[in-house]
Amino acid sequence: MRFFSDNAASVHPAVLEAMAAANHVDTAYDGDAISRSLDRHLSDLFETDVTAIWVATGTAANSLALASLCPPYGSILCHRDAHIQNDECGAPEFYTHGAKLVLVEGDGAKITAPALAARLAATPGGVHWAQPHALSITNATEYGRVYRPDEVAALGEIAHAHGLGVHMDGARFANAMVTLGCAPADVTWRAGVDVLSFGFTKNGGMAAECLVYFDKAKAQGVVERRKRAGHLLSKGRYLAAQIRALLRDDLWLDNARAANAGAQILAEACGQRLLHAVEANEVFVRMTPEDAARLRAQGFDFYDWADGEVRFVVSWDQPQAEITAFAAAIAAL
Amino acid sequence: MRFFSDNAASVHPAVLEAMAAANHVDTAYDGDAISRSLDRHLSDLFETDVTAIWVATGTAANSLALASLCPPYGSILCHRDAHIQNDECGAPEFYTHGAKLVLVEGDGAKITAPALAARLAATPGGVHWAQPHALSITNATEYGRVYRPDEVAALGEIAHAHGLGVHMDGARFANAMVTLGCAPADVTWRAGVDVLSFGFTKNGGMAAECLVYFDKAKAQGVVERRKRAGHLLSKGRYLAAQIRALLRDDLWLDNARAANAGAQILAEACGQRLLHAVEANEVFVRMTPEDAARLRAQGFDFYDWADGEVRFVVSWDQPQAEITAFAAAIAAL
Amino acid sequence: MRFFSDNAASVHPAVLEAMAAANHVDTAYDGDAISRSLDRHLSDLFETDVTAIWVATGTAANSLALASLCPPYGSILCHRDAHIQNDECGAPEFYTHGAKLVLVEGDGAKITAPALAARLAATPGGVHWAQPHALSITNATEYGRVYRPDEVAALGEIAHAHGLGVHMDGARFANAMVTLGCAPADVTWRAGVDVLSFGFTKNGGMAAECLVYFDKAKAQGVVERRKRAGHLLSKGRYLAAQIRALLRDDLWLDNARAANAGAQILAEACGQRLLHAVEANEVFVRMTPEDAARLRAQGFDFYDWADGEVRFVVSWDQPQAEITAFAAAIAAL
Amino acid sequence: MRFFSDNAASVHPAVLEAMAAANHVDTAYDGDAISRSLDRHLSDLFETDVTAIWVATGTAANSLALASLCPPYGSILCHRDAHIQNDECGAPEFYTHGAKLVLVEGDGAKITAPALAARLAATPGGVHWAQPHALSITNATEYGRVYRPDEVAALGEIAHAHGLGVHMDGARFANAMVTLGCAPADVTWRAGVDVLSFGFTKNGGMAAECLVYFDKAKAQGVVERRKRAGHLLSKGRYLAAQIRALLRDDLWLDNARAANAGAQILAEACGQRLLHAVEANEVFVRMTPEDAARLRAQGFDFYDWADGEVRFVVSWDQPQAEITAFAAAIAAL
Repeated sequence: MRFFSDNAASVHPAVLEAMAAANHVDTAYDGDAISRSLDRHLSDLFETDVTAIWVATGTAANSLALASLCPPYGSILCHRDAHIQNDECGAPEFYTHGAKLVLVEGDGAKITAPALAARLAATPGGVHWAQPHALSITNATEYGRVYRPDEVAALGEIAHAHGLGVHMDGARFANAMVTLGCAPADVTWRAGVDVLSFGFTKNGGMAAECLVYFDKAKAQGVVERRKRAGHLLSKGRYLAAQIRALLRDDLWLDNARAANAGAQILAEACGQRLLHAVEANEVFVRMTPEDAARLRAQGFDFYDWADGEVRFVVSWDQPQAEITAFAAAIAAL
Repeated sequence: MRFFSDNAASVHPAVLEAMAAANHVDTAYDGDAISRSLDRHLSDLFETDVTAIWVATGTAANSLALASLCPPYGSILCHRDAHIQNDECGAPEFYTHGAKLVLVEGDGAKITAPALAARLAATPGGVHWAQPHALSITNATEYGRVYRPDEVAALGEIAHAHGLGVHMDGARFANAMVTLGCAPADVTWRAGVDVLSFGFTKNGGMAAECLVYFDKAKAQGVVERRKRAGHLLSKGRYLAAQIRALLRDDLWLDNARAANAGAQILAEACGQRLLHAVEANEVFVRMTPEDAARLRAQGFDFYDWADGEVRFVVSWDQPQAEITAFAAAIAAL
Repeated sequence: MRFFSDNAASVHPAVLEAMAAANHVDTAYDGDAISRSLDRHLSDLFETDVTAIWVATGTAANSLALASLCPPYGSILCHRDAHIQNDECGAPEFYTHGAKLVLVEGDGAKITAPALAARLAATPGGVHWAQPHALSITNATEYGRVYRPDEVAALGEIAHAHGLGVHMDGARFANAMVTLGCAPADVTWRAGVDVLSFGFTKNGGMAAECLVYFDKAKAQGVVERRKRAGHLLSKGRYLAAQIRALLRDDLWLDNARAANAGAQILAEACGQRLLHAVEANEVFVRMTPEDAARLRAQGFDFYDWADGEVRFVVSWDQPQAEITAFAAAIAAL
Repeated sequence: MRFFSDNAASVHPAVLEAMAAANHVDTAYDGDAISRSLDRHLSDLFETDVTAIWVATGTAANSLALASLCPPYGSILCHRDAHIQNDECGAPEFYTHGAKLVLVEGDGAKITAPALAARLAATPGGVHWAQPHALSITNATEYGRVYRPDEVAALGEIAHAHGLGVHMDGARFANAMVTLGCAPADVTWRAGVDVLSFGFTKNGGMAAECLVYFDKAKAQGVVERRKRAGHLLSKGRYLAAQIRALLRDDLWLDNARAANAGAQILAEACGQRLLHAVEANEVFVRMTPEDAARLRAQGFDFYDWADGEVRFVVSWDQPQAEITAFAAAIAAL
């Protein structure tokens, strides 16, 4: 039973159907009706006029967003445990042409307003240090924690006061939204986010992520950057169809709700083992290698995070019986 | 009726089925069994031990290949009309970090051995001119012409004598193979090609291209480059499944055969209008704007290539009736 | 006797004295009084408020200028024989992060207004082709020809109408100015030039070139780019002192006048051999290998340019006797 | 009295003389006899056959070295306080095309062998994390501390065992050598250093730093990278002459000896205020703003390093009277 990554989850049947249906659309690149409808659908969802740009991976989405916000000679503030810092093999540096990532600390991979303010205050001016141009936060974070609208707004205010653009890595934005229960606008542009990487792949899609530019001026050059990165698909309609299918009737929220609910069941079973509050679909727990081995012997697969720490991820398509069985096995340790 | 691009063609049902079947595979990135089988399947096809790397677009495939062959301070020889020069918004420059494309002339977008030799002989040595490190040729070419094995071998010999790596852009490699009728090995590694961009998207795939490294040493760093370009899919099995499906039972050749056959029918109808011999699925013809308008008025859609020149592309899924009708309409002009 | 390059000329004594005098200045980087005076001196010279940025080489100056004008995904129009295309080992591509150089033809390495207009008209829009963002011209050109103010203005008008920034490579700007006799402003900003690489090294300096931004907004980021390219000298006063010395009492014009006058003497001796009108300090002539060997046997050193073509360069410090002797030797062939 | 930076020091008269003498050398770029002699002089100094590459700044030298050791997709380990991390505006990222700097801690800006080993042990393999390819250490360090040969050897051994190349930033290598008293070879190639940035600018030069490749294979491509970075001077003889003059009769050691001796006098005066052992020409001390103001009121100029911390730098040309006066003023606080 697979609890190691939502990247291993299946594609939702409605998404597969939408992709098959796109077979009847016959325009190249992103000139088709499905693709052209995404600006509108995402503008509706976010209650403001946005520019949407879609690509196949979160790494590409994040990196394109950062290249929009930061020149090659600038720096980007992010959390020490951010995906852009640790898991993308230097993709942000590739796309930005060498901007520096400057690391900020914080519990649960969350940056706090005081930490951001302190970091900016300690940054020397002048040409010797790469001046900060962007802030990137992740919601839900790499530890499954969620930024509330007021927390984002506090960061956004500081960032904008210092002339930084604000990027939100939303690889698990759906999981955050389910927990927050607010309007998507509240935790994004109303809180100062300029561009969001809106993830669909982990949440029932196949390979589909959407950059949403709330500050449309910041989208300048992004379609050219996407093309020269090889991320403009020649048959773009099949990618757009995935996003369209997941947005329809709030399927994206349903999928995330299922995953989050499963994570809550595991969280209860973990009790004192929990390393972080469980606010999305990830559960980080203390566990001895012996206990981990016991669980694996029962057929549960998961990720060793660090010494004495493991990570469980519940996917949108996780059968309830698997979750219940896993919770029982954990509780029985 | 769509004759403007094979990028607008549908995905073959067998490919869609294979992708749906991949829903039952649950490993992330490219660790799954389908992905892991591709080295073997392509080694079988090419009768030698190859390293295969797959991505979603031809632009990414070409650019990764060129970055494998040419350092940032080098240059790449290609035809003036090459896709890498004209249609990728500087993707080769992005991936190679600024290598220069040096243009060579030749009929039908084919580079001849004398032209290559002359260009290399005229290249100054030293550090002021970006020294050539790679040759990139396209088969079938941008004008639907095909390089024969002996032609590739002549180029490969010159290239290797000058220390250049050899890349073949095979966005329409299948169409070339159908025309050539030789073994895939004959026109690639046996003729000096070090790395091939093997295209599947235009030929019944959805978004799937495969880099095939015949010189495995030249693959060094390519998986890292793929990752930092955002082209390692987190659910890579769906991409691998497309390639697997098209290779099975020579479906890739069947698809290309259908497209090429259609192009031959159009070619006959075009007669003296032909600008280039038709050796793949593209037909370039002289045509007045008035004639073009007449065809469009009858529902035929195609691409204006240059003043008084148009391009027709026959896709793998083109209904025979459409082809016949189009041929008749052209003949009736 | 050296006629092969003005890069081999000596440094003017006044420049050496100014550098020695800078030993008494003790501020690091470019914070010293000499450096800080350059904006003013160049603003005076050009009769407008400019931003000046100085570096040690013309390659760095040109590349920084181009990076100011063109994003990584754009293209730069220049002459096929431009220094930035042929002699800088891809420096523009390095500094711009992969912008493309698009080549335009023209006699004497001069781009004409119709050629520029035609090239722009033939450029496809959209994201597949790297869109043009800059025009770079060289004055005096690589063949020692000079653009007049009206010629630059015609190019500038077309460029600006298409949204391009305009760069002038002035490695031999002094030589052009002596020939033109106009105000420096007339052939630069009044004619639409946004940024000039003003060369001093070949003209009596040691290693000093100055970027002059007439459009100060375009200088955004250039000091950061200079720093990260390693071109902010920690003892910048010695570089600024060179420029200051050459600007004082029009020494730069005196030096260029001497070089140009010598070239005129050679030009007369060359007569029908001339390949290009001699308008600066370079003389391009037809010459058989036998004749070239005869001259070399008499102690004259020069550069083989192409088959049957040689180049003579007269430097600012060339003794009159050498010039007279060379002219006589040529005439005697 | 200037104690804020050795970048503000004058150029040694012997260097100025050598530069003036280079006026009689007339070959362009680095083809002259002075330039061509540097390989030999540095090979003699280091008792092994080296490849020498010279540039005008330490930032360029460091960045070229790192580009030789690390591909764009790799990472470079360095100290958190390294100049390459904090003071070069992302130059290493520019020259390496986006490699990541990974920071290691350690007293006095020195990396210890256990810290290096631990950091490497904690580095995940695979393509998601930018794999380490180089180690860069600074000798003397940013805090004026010196690595002994055995310390470098311990680091070199670990680095090479992990396949990393080793770079030494020697902006103040002369100051370190004076303190160490060993052969230059002992603390460089015999201890595992592959390439050294050998600084001359701060130590009596004008603008001259020399890359010394002990592993000559690692120099592949560096002359091309230097050219395209605009760091091949067209009149390179004036740069080579500086290095030649400083190497002659151990002038480089004399200059550093003078600076170090002055720093020792200040160090004694500072007593308990010292933050780091004084092993080169820099003195870091605890000091209240009030005390700092008192010193400045007496005409002493220095750098505020951090809250309650200041830095004094003694230059090679510092008059003894200034040093004595400053020491007395500090002692009198």
